[in-house]
Amino acid sequence: MSNAEHINFSNAERETLHKIMLARRDMRHFLPNSKVEDDVLVRIMEAAHSAPSVGLMQPWRFIHVKNASLRENIATLVDTEIQNTADVMNERKAEFLKLKLEGIRDCAELIAVVQAPDDGTLLGRRTLPTEMALCSTACAIQNLWLAARAENLGMGWVSLFEPQALARLLQCPEGAVPIALLCIGPVKEFYEKPMLVETGWRDAKTLDSVLFNDKWPDD
Amino acid sequence: MSNAEHINFSNAERETLHKIMLARRDMRHFLPNSKVEDDVLVRIMEAAHSAPSVGLMQPWRFIHVKNASLRENIATLVDTEIQNTADVMNERKAEFLKLKLEGIRDCAELIAVVQAPDDGTLLGRRTLPTEMALCSTACAIQNLWLAARAENLGMGWVSLFEPQALARLLQCPEGAVPIALLCIGPVKEFYEKPMLVETGWRDAKTLDSVLFNDKWPDD
Repeated sequence: MSNAEHINFSNAERETLHKIMLARRDMRHFLPNSKVEDDVLVRIMEAAHSAPSVGLMQPWRFIHVKNASLRENIATLVDTEIQNTADVMNERKAEFLKLKLEGIRDCAELIAVVQAPDDGTLLGRRTLPTEMALCSTACAIQNLWLAARAENLGMGWVSLFEPQALARLLQCPEGAVPIALLCIGPVKEFYEKPMLVETGWRDAKTLDSVLFNDKWPDD
Repeated sequence: MSNAEHINFSNAERETLHKIMLARRDMRHFLPNSKVEDDVLVRIMEAAHSAPSVGLMQPWRFIHVKNASLRENIATLVDTEIQNTADVMNERKAEFLKLKLEGIRDCAELIAVVQAPDDGTLLGRRTLPTEMALCSTACAIQNLWLAARAENLGMGWVSLFEPQALARLLQCPEGAVPIALLCIGPVKEFYEKPMLVETGWRDAKTLDSVLFNDKWPDD
């Protein structure tokens, strides 16, 4: 894109961005036996790759899971982690097990996001090296999420897995850490509110309660 | 927004999103003595707060730095960290010190982003608790970044600080970790490419080099 530096966005363009952000959901329900066209997937991945990163390290790696038995092995790994989480949920265990927490088997496309082994980037990373690399990858995932929604596709970030076991399935080298299983694909409809709000699992905070002036507020 | 679940985005809306993503830059050069209108800042913060979070924990806290002497103390902290980083840059020290790495004193608005103390959320966090909380906050910052660009404002994420020293300046409780100083405000122009590419500090990767099928590639 030429002259990117002088683009002035209109009010209408700004409103489009907010509309996409507000319509984006963490999806777990997908239309089975659906697909995502290759050109659509490329656009979504390009959006992810256009994210910022600390020291331009671009520490994100995307593994597109195409093999059906690999996907099933990943789904089994997630099933196990859901049980392991349920076992520490105590009095909310039954309620937890009623939630649909992933769409690994149903979604059209599955993409694992792996944090690359540390490349030694120093710029902006002397004091919080692991944190800043991880934040960069999360920014890429948020871009991907918005881009998927703009294609009218759902996306869900599944973090219910044992990272070392998933790293083995994906044949990752030492130091690489899977941080997300992204379920992407057509959905029947998007949740009107975040699913955990809709199901009564948890209330959302107001902006006022997380925005302070000059200091963390006294209790 | 009602009926969020049935919104179908058009090709034009999708293209607007990509245009904003591609025009977003990590800015360090700001127009001094400029301002951001209150309603603009509110829109940007609402975009941040509409981000997804693991288990709906919403672990982001924003501290708007309004006090001038607090801002100066923060700027001094960043100056110190730039020197500390320069000291470990070895042969690239002189080149590093020529880069403009922050706009703390010049930007219209300064917002510190603090990771809240762990609230004990279990859903989606049994195996990667710190990582998933941090990724949630990074998603909020990426939303904020895109929203700022859509207002034709620059934003720069400064991570050059000692987090414990910054936590003290912001009177954060134990367990709260500052992860970003966000410089926000009008700019003369946006960088055409990422500043670290423009200055020859580092080349960007191609998408092909970070996107794999089914497994991490062999060397």
